[in-house]
Amino acid sequence: MKTQVCIIGGGPSGLLLSQLLHLKGIDTILLERHSREYVLGRIRAGVLEHGFAKLMREAQCSERMDREGEIHEGFFIAHDGRLDRIDLHKYSGGNSVVVYGQTELTRDLYEARERMKGNVIHNVEDVYLNDIASDAPYVTYRAGDRIVRIDCDYIVGADGFHGVSRKAIPKGILREYERVYPFGWLGVLSRTKPVSPELIYAKHERGFALCSLRSQVLSRYYIQVPLEDSVEDWSDDAFWAELKRRLPAEVAARMVTGPAIEKSIAPLRSFVAEPMRYKRLFLAGDAAHIVPPTGARGLNSAASDIYYLYHGLVDHYQKGDNQKLDGYSDKALARVWKAQRFSWWMTSLLHRFPANSPYEDKLQDTDLAYLMSSDLAKGSLAENYVGLPF
Amino acid sequence: MKTQVCIIGGGPSGLLLSQLLHLKGIDTILLERHSREYVLGRIRAGVLEHGFAKLMREAQCSERMDREGEIHEGFFIAHDGRLDRIDLHKYSGGNSVVVYGQTELTRDLYEARERMKGNVIHNVEDVYLNDIASDAPYVTYRAGDRIVRIDCDYIVGADGFHGVSRKAIPKGILREYERVYPFGWLGVLSRTKPVSPELIYAKHERGFALCSLRSQVLSRYYIQVPLEDSVEDWSDDAFWAELKRRLPAEVAARMVTGPAIEKSIAPLRSFVAEPMRYKRLFLAGDAAHIVPPTGARGLNSAASDIYYLYHGLVDHYQKGDNQKLDGYSDKALARVWKAQRFSWWMTSLLHRFPANSPYEDKLQDTDLAYLMSSDLAKGSLAENYVGLPF
Repeated sequence: MKTQVCIIGGGPSGLLLSQLLHLKGIDTILLERHSREYVLGRIRAGVLEHGFAKLMREAQCSERMDREGEIHEGFFIAHDGRLDRIDLHKYSGGNSVVVYGQTELTRDLYEARERMKGNVIHNVEDVYLNDIASDAPYVTYRAGDRIVRIDCDYIVGADGFHGVSRKAIPKGILREYERVYPFGWLGVLSRTKPVSPELIYAKHERGFALCSLRSQVLSRYYIQVPLEDSVEDWSDDAFWAELKRRLPAEVAARMVTGPAIEKSIAPLRSFVAEPMRYKRLFLAGDAAHIVPPTGARGLNSAASDIYYLYHGLVDHYQKGDNQKLDGYSDKALARVWKAQRFSWWMTSLLHRFPANSPYEDKLQDTDLAYLMSSDLAKGSLAENYVGLPF
Repeated sequence: MKTQVCIIGGGPSGLLLSQLLHLKGIDTILLERHSREYVLGRIRAGVLEHGFAKLMREAQCSERMDREGEIHEGFFIAHDGRLDRIDLHKYSGGNSVVVYGQTELTRDLYEARERMKGNVIHNVEDVYLNDIASDAPYVTYRAGDRIVRIDCDYIVGADGFHGVSRKAIPKGILREYERVYPFGWLGVLSRTKPVSPELIYAKHERGFALCSLRSQVLSRYYIQVPLEDSVEDWSDDAFWAELKRRLPAEVAARMVTGPAIEKSIAPLRSFVAEPMRYKRLFLAGDAAHIVPPTGARGLNSAASDIYYLYHGLVDHYQKGDNQKLDGYSDKALARVWKAQRFSWWMTSLLHRFPANSPYEDKLQDTDLAYLMSSDLAKGSLAENYVGLPF
């Protein structure tokens, strides 16, 4: 087979890029290791920057998002037994975020690709990136006992942190930056009415908690737990009790609990690989960088990569102009690092760090006190949360 | 002797409080361990918040400051071979700072106290705070072979980090918070024209540097050095060469060098003792808290203590209202911690931290890149630098 851009990875980044390029007449083949059902079974974030929502509209995939997604113009920070609201709309100069589950968004993208007869191939095994140091790279995969070869101009690695794309780059090319946090998030999904129509980020001496949601009937709650904990250590009852303990009494009192329909522990990690290009291979999203979930930058950081890559590829194919494509890595990384900074800051602001000195704990309390006292600090938080300009 | 408020320490905090209270008809005696000449020989900071300048005017000590002090409406951050200006005036909504050496300010305060026949006693030895747990505290000191006793309503400990006042508080009352930085500042004072009319804070891979000034003929420069270094390790020539290396080429090229008329190394430390009151003893300024010099919060943090204490004592003596005096520690500490946070942040932003991971170095670079890209982040810096409201 032959295509212009071969995309590895059928998550939202790869699908969105494939869809956007299609609308500009650029041919893609998308390879996904898992089945569509498997991909759609993954529980992921659900807070979309307003710029991401715009990109979904440009991709003609926004109908259901605009209908069912919820515009959030603010969120709460719970601390010291009280709830303070961050008015994103006011402090970001009129912007907001859309709460719409990544699963739903991915489903919409799959349906759009299908509608447009996009070439999305599932269950591919043994994907290899071949001759990527040359001007004629190609991708191979195994389908049953057959090896399939795809020749292409460019490869986009959108196959996540554990994918093959980043690992295909020869040793010594990438510089990797990493930070590991000394705790994880225990998350519970439940078919219950969310305790708050807007997210609540809670700072508590027992640890961080987050009240999030996927819709008005589907709640997503998290608590900070030690890295050593496993899901088996946490019965539903223990989870709800601990969650309530970390929230202001009036919030805990109105919490509706129910059976966990998904329960998992995710470690918190920050990671960036530089550069995000090697010859004709471009990395995008989690394949190049991951963040802790605090502040919901992960999917949104992937979206900005896709935005830059999309415009670079369009300029290349439509005008023969490679300037944006050649600037992709620098441009994308500048924004990626700002998202890393923001995730680090929000994680540092709200979590309990067991190894902190008393002075550092006080600084953390003061960071929050200063934030609550300053319109400029709230503005800075808001502009990052709704998404810095692409 | 008998007075209403006995002030320990003849630095700017003690003098300013004594002067302000005098103007409201409240009697003070001020005790200083050293001679006036000694106090005026100490080289200290020179950047005054606009609120501090206002307090100097209220104290009727501002004539020379307003004539000779320089209004600074901005400063520079040097990084990556370039100079970026932070427009304090624009981003703080019209505020600024006054550059006026602490030595000059202290001289003005001494002269004002003298003019008004304030009771300022120098060269006191063996100062003791007595019966401070009681309602009738008194201070004693030795003058030659005579022990002098001062009975008073209140004692104000404005005698610095190493002073006797904080140490007079019984064990177990104070909680102390501390952070030590793994480097110091090597400072040089020289009778040369400053390289820049406004301060230059320089971030460089070799370490931080600061181009400051006391006047247009008196320059004050600093470079970050390892804690193990001593002044003897640094000839004037070595200092100037290293300073220039850390500045953009165009700045280094116009640097006027000259003999160091003072050269010293100061370690960087953050410290807060809580609460700032024990019975009838109030702590103010360095006696209760110190900051690294980055961002010039030290003297300004002392000024806000004096502001709160002044108003508390005036309400007590003029109206019999103790509300502000009883709220002094909480009120002062809330602002002290914000100054601690800002000093920590500016120190973290600009210095080289040898133990940082590559990820942390990147976060630091990004913090600066974000600052330079965001009006809101610059606004937040500016509101802290010109001084948060009292």
